[in-house]
Amino acid sequence: MGPRNALTDVPGVKVGHKTLNFDTSEGAVVRTGVTAILPHGGNQFQEKVLGAAHIINGFGKTTGVVQLHELGVIESPIMLTNTFSVPAVTEGTLRHLFSQNEDIGTETGTANIIVGECNDGYLNDIRGMHVRSTDALEAIQAATEDVEEGNVGAGTGMSCLGFKGGIGMSSRVAGEYTVGVLVLSNFGQKRDLSYRGKRIFEEMLFEEDMPEGSTMMIVGTNAPMSERQLKRVAKRTTFGLARTGSSAAHGSGDIAIAFSTSHRIPHYSEQSLQRFDFIKEESITQLFEATVESTEEAIWNSLLAATDMSGRQGHERKAINVKDLHNL
Amino acid sequence: MGPRNALTDVPGVKVGHKTLNFDTSEGAVVRTGVTAILPHGGNQFQEKVLGAAHIINGFGKTTGVVQLHELGVIESPIMLTNTFSVPAVTEGTLRHLFSQNEDIGTETGTANIIVGECNDGYLNDIRGMHVRSTDALEAIQAATEDVEEGNVGAGTGMSCLGFKGGIGMSSRVAGEYTVGVLVLSNFGQKRDLSYRGKRIFEEMLFEEDMPEGSTMMIVGTNAPMSERQLKRVAKRTTFGLARTGSSAAHGSGDIAIAFSTSHRIPHYSEQSLQRFDFIKEESITQLFEATVESTEEAIWNSLLAATDMSGRQGHERKAINVKDLHNL
Amino acid sequence: MGPRNALTDVPGVKVGHKTLNFDTSEGAVVRTGVTAILPHGGNQFQEKVLGAAHIINGFGKTTGVVQLHELGVIESPIMLTNTFSVPAVTEGTLRHLFSQNEDIGTETGTANIIVGECNDGYLNDIRGMHVRSTDALEAIQAATEDVEEGNVGAGTGMSCLGFKGGIGMSSRVAGEYTVGVLVLSNFGQKRDLSYRGKRIFEEMLFEEDMPEGSTMMIVGTNAPMSERQLKRVAKRTTFGLARTGSSAAHGSGDIAIAFSTSHRIPHYSEQSLQRFDFIKEESITQLFEATVESTEEAIWNSLLAATDMSGRQGHERKAINVKDLHNL
Amino acid sequence: MGPRNALTDVPGVKVGHKTLNFDTSEGAVVRTGVTAILPHGGNQFQEKVLGAAHIINGFGKTTGVVQLHELGVIESPIMLTNTFSVPAVTEGTLRHLFSQNEDIGTETGTANIIVGECNDGYLNDIRGMHVRSTDALEAIQAATEDVEEGNVGAGTGMSCLGFKGGIGMSSRVAGEYTVGVLVLSNFGQKRDLSYRGKRIFEEMLFEEDMPEGSTMMIVGTNAPMSERQLKRVAKRTTFGLARTGSSAAHGSGDIAIAFSTSHRIPHYSEQSLQRFDFIKEESITQLFEATVESTEEAIWNSLLAATDMSGRQGHERKAINVKDLHNL
Repeated sequence: MGPRNALTDVPGVKVGHKTLNFDTSEGAVVRTGVTAILPHGGNQFQEKVLGAAHIINGFGKTTGVVQLHELGVIESPIMLTNTFSVPAVTEGTLRHLFSQNEDIGTETGTANIIVGECNDGYLNDIRGMHVRSTDALEAIQAATEDVEEGNVGAGTGMSCLGFKGGIGMSSRVAGEYTVGVLVLSNFGQKRDLSYRGKRIFEEMLFEEDMPEGSTMMIVGTNAPMSERQLKRVAKRTTFGLARTGSSAAHGSGDIAIAFSTSHRIPHYSEQSLQRFDFIKEESITQLFEATVESTEEAIWNSLLAATDMSGRQGHERKAINVKDLHNL
Repeated sequence: MGPRNALTDVPGVKVGHKTLNFDTSEGAVVRTGVTAILPHGGNQFQEKVLGAAHIINGFGKTTGVVQLHELGVIESPIMLTNTFSVPAVTEGTLRHLFSQNEDIGTETGTANIIVGECNDGYLNDIRGMHVRSTDALEAIQAATEDVEEGNVGAGTGMSCLGFKGGIGMSSRVAGEYTVGVLVLSNFGQKRDLSYRGKRIFEEMLFEEDMPEGSTMMIVGTNAPMSERQLKRVAKRTTFGLARTGSSAAHGSGDIAIAFSTSHRIPHYSEQSLQRFDFIKEESITQLFEATVESTEEAIWNSLLAATDMSGRQGHERKAINVKDLHNL
Repeated sequence: MGPRNALTDVPGVKVGHKTLNFDTSEGAVVRTGVTAILPHGGNQFQEKVLGAAHIINGFGKTTGVVQLHELGVIESPIMLTNTFSVPAVTEGTLRHLFSQNEDIGTETGTANIIVGECNDGYLNDIRGMHVRSTDALEAIQAATEDVEEGNVGAGTGMSCLGFKGGIGMSSRVAGEYTVGVLVLSNFGQKRDLSYRGKRIFEEMLFEEDMPEGSTMMIVGTNAPMSERQLKRVAKRTTFGLARTGSSAAHGSGDIAIAFSTSHRIPHYSEQSLQRFDFIKEESITQLFEATVESTEEAIWNSLLAATDMSGRQGHERKAINVKDLHNL
Repeated sequence: MGPRNALTDVPGVKVGHKTLNFDTSEGAVVRTGVTAILPHGGNQFQEKVLGAAHIINGFGKTTGVVQLHELGVIESPIMLTNTFSVPAVTEGTLRHLFSQNEDIGTETGTANIIVGECNDGYLNDIRGMHVRSTDALEAIQAATEDVEEGNVGAGTGMSCLGFKGGIGMSSRVAGEYTVGVLVLSNFGQKRDLSYRGKRIFEEMLFEEDMPEGSTMMIVGTNAPMSERQLKRVAKRTTFGLARTGSSAAHGSGDIAIAFSTSHRIPHYSEQSLQRFDFIKEESITQLFEATVESTEEAIWNSLLAATDMSGRQGHERKAINVKDLHNL
């Protein structure tokens, strides 16, 4: 793994959180937030990166994947939040791009914003839509290489495998390249949890009050890969997810996005051609394996970094007991 | 064609517009709006309809297609607006569903909102994001069977084939069923325009100041079709679009959505099985042909119904001259 | 699990093998064969079943998926063989359908044959194309409910996770329905093998002489599901595959096909509509879990049922040691 | 257009036909054949080209698209034939690759063969499977730059828009690049025919004895494009097809394949990276337009080059009358 065991082990990648954890004077219980992933520190619209999305289970409201699939480039920070705050975060991220780029919407057309989401409605007053567009901006501005995990940013109110979920990261070094993963974990029941192939809660009944889940998995790498190769990488998150016990339940919108920092595609260019150097297809398997391992570990790290949290209507979500997990 | 030559010839379908056509006191030139398509007049979340989307050219920001593709149902009005107002319209439509359904986000999880868009930035101050979430609600509330075309709703500021574009509709009767189409036309240059196979503006130079275009095409029918069959229908809009001269230029986000009013899928059900009656695959060709013809005619109708409009920075867009078109 | 722990626990489903295990007088080493899966015992062309395919990793030559994706029906037995014998098996299966249906190619158009494949070239003289079209017919004719596993049919020469692979099956009962899986296992290195989350061969070097692998996974069920729902089921095989240690390596063409026996779609029909009863989407998760578990177990069963085999150029492939696996 | 108005205007591209037009002594009426498209004259397996397929309507049996979609490379000649001869042509093309490459199936794994098809059963005894694997080899060996059109190769027995169809080509110069198209035309009824936007046979009843159709459209270019960009190009064939009157009827398997000769991807390479120069996305629209125009014209050329043909059971198919078409 890389020095931080984090997505930010990929050189240039930064992650920022805006955490909303408060009760309003009207009694609304707010347990939510925004997380921003910046593939590089510069002007993302002017210098795009290659990327791809893979929809494992499309019970989800992630925006921006239509254009990502068509053009293979990411031209905004990748944003995460709760399901009903996708509009606010999209608008905030648009305003961020507007502030950097006077030409958007006047001389040069539009910008494609990518926002992923999970439903934190078990703990959070999600109907209240408490995230504002300015929270997106603050998450972007907070981006750093030393990133907190657990109950932070978009992960603040999430639940996973019957325990407190949230933000988790991991990374692997594969030859001369690094693969990093950030997950927003919010899937599964306690009875699904499978650590190193063992289930300990198999006998538990279905927990009726569990809301629908989801997982967002963001893979970054400095390996020079095309958007097609990145799509193949994005698909491998499924294999890491599977090893934690998930079967991608009906209501779990499990979605992966992968990007490479190796090439920057300029929005404006004098050149008629753009040059790319991509890895040979035959050497991609080690990057697949790095992705699978990082994804699984990032999910465990999201549980291990989380702490107990109480939420709306007296709902409580306990953090997993580290010892129990390792004793399995 | 049906009695109205409109999408609303499909029994139960309603369409509403909210038109924003004004200059603000700060000098912003607002030429935009919202259009809402209601597959039926009831509670769309409680009684979903089968649907499908087809991405002809994915240079677009339409939301809601990930879940539509996975589950094959439409559970909100289908909304249209300008590119940067997708967040406001999504939020407004969510609030509409919240007001009808107290269980969303508390007992029952989330709702999937479908919002399509085109870029009206040639005439409209699109960076100003002048559409508010309440405008979405007003478009929904205005829904009726007698629908205006041209410079209304989402079509207010659109341009198409070098002329003023906007909202257009058409319908065809295919055996015992009706197919209706509504388009939001915003694609192409004058030199692309091809009416009955003839181009009249071939010699024109590329118009440098034309912003990137797009087309949204919404197909409704009362023919009992599965989501897979509706996907096939959605693809046929390409054939109607092609006959107007489009080649789906790089920046033209051309997207089709099709739905059938024939079955309602309840959000809650006591039954373990749901019953469907679908047309035989062999009889689908006549519905394809009805879709192709309605799409082409809806595009022409969007041009013919539009009127001259002036917009931001002195931009002007002339309506097409009806005589010229028919004399071709 | 069902009484046979096999795909054939799904009522009406039959499986037949034709095993080719001999050395020719010219010295060719033949270790290959054909496996036929019959969704029902009748005329599959006249009475189609609903089905879907999911391409996990498309390094493969499976035929028939283009039409399966478009129309959602399976109208031939599902055939498995080695990569270069796909043409012979397609032709043989066509001849089988011709013999049952005089109208194909004269009054009624064509038939879509589904043939999956893996590369058994480590043990088998795959360039020799020793499978003949008549072998496909014999596999179909041999179809039965009591099916052998291991080194039989298409599994004769396959390798998996560094051991002898081949045909394996498993089944689960999910409520009132049965899910059965048949795999043709031919993927992975010894170092990938992960049983109940543990790897025992992690230190092993990459085995240079291992040919590219693949996995075919066929899921059958009597649960009444639409082709879209079956696509969702097919995707869940990924989760079972992942739990055996696979990361879907670059050269491993991992492909799943799912079908339901619950409805028969007549090739000719007097009716303008066809009636379907499909399960509620909300109850699909238990079928997902049954698929994941059956897939993982079917893979283990393919290894456990296999026996040592020697092949071309002195290549040998050992069967896995049952005790070692269970002692992990 | 290019000097030949043909796919072979793209430098290095060659096309070969093997025509089977005879009656057997047993009375079988054989009106079929094979067409081979060679992206370059060298060893296609050792030096692959970038490519993509687009399925307009998947009622078809084209093989090889699963792997093409995953890896984005074409490693065999692109072959065309009748529906039931896909196995024979696949096997023949495999044998061609075997003869050039001793390592396939022994040291290096498998090869992906692309074979497209249409149903010529109206004129041809398609059930007889009269094409042999050697015919594929002969088509490949006959490849040249001066290519016949009409009733040749795979086009021998095809019907299109109620007239005799077959092989047609066209090309366009777009800036410094050439786009060439070859079609195998076999779709539509006479009443569908639309030339320059006019239908002349609208009043005709549905021709009951018309078998199901299909169109294969092969686009080649020397423009340096990625597999993703080529996919976008392949989609634009739909727009050319639409302008001839097609609505992609239910039974018409309309499929496009696009390739670029600009880069060669070596099967073996000492380099860890491969270098590519791709055109800017913004300049792709002129290549789209060249594709649309070439596709439409190639279809007309397939009709114009065809001659009257009689076939099985006294079926006759007249060639279109050139004057009538141009007088429309």
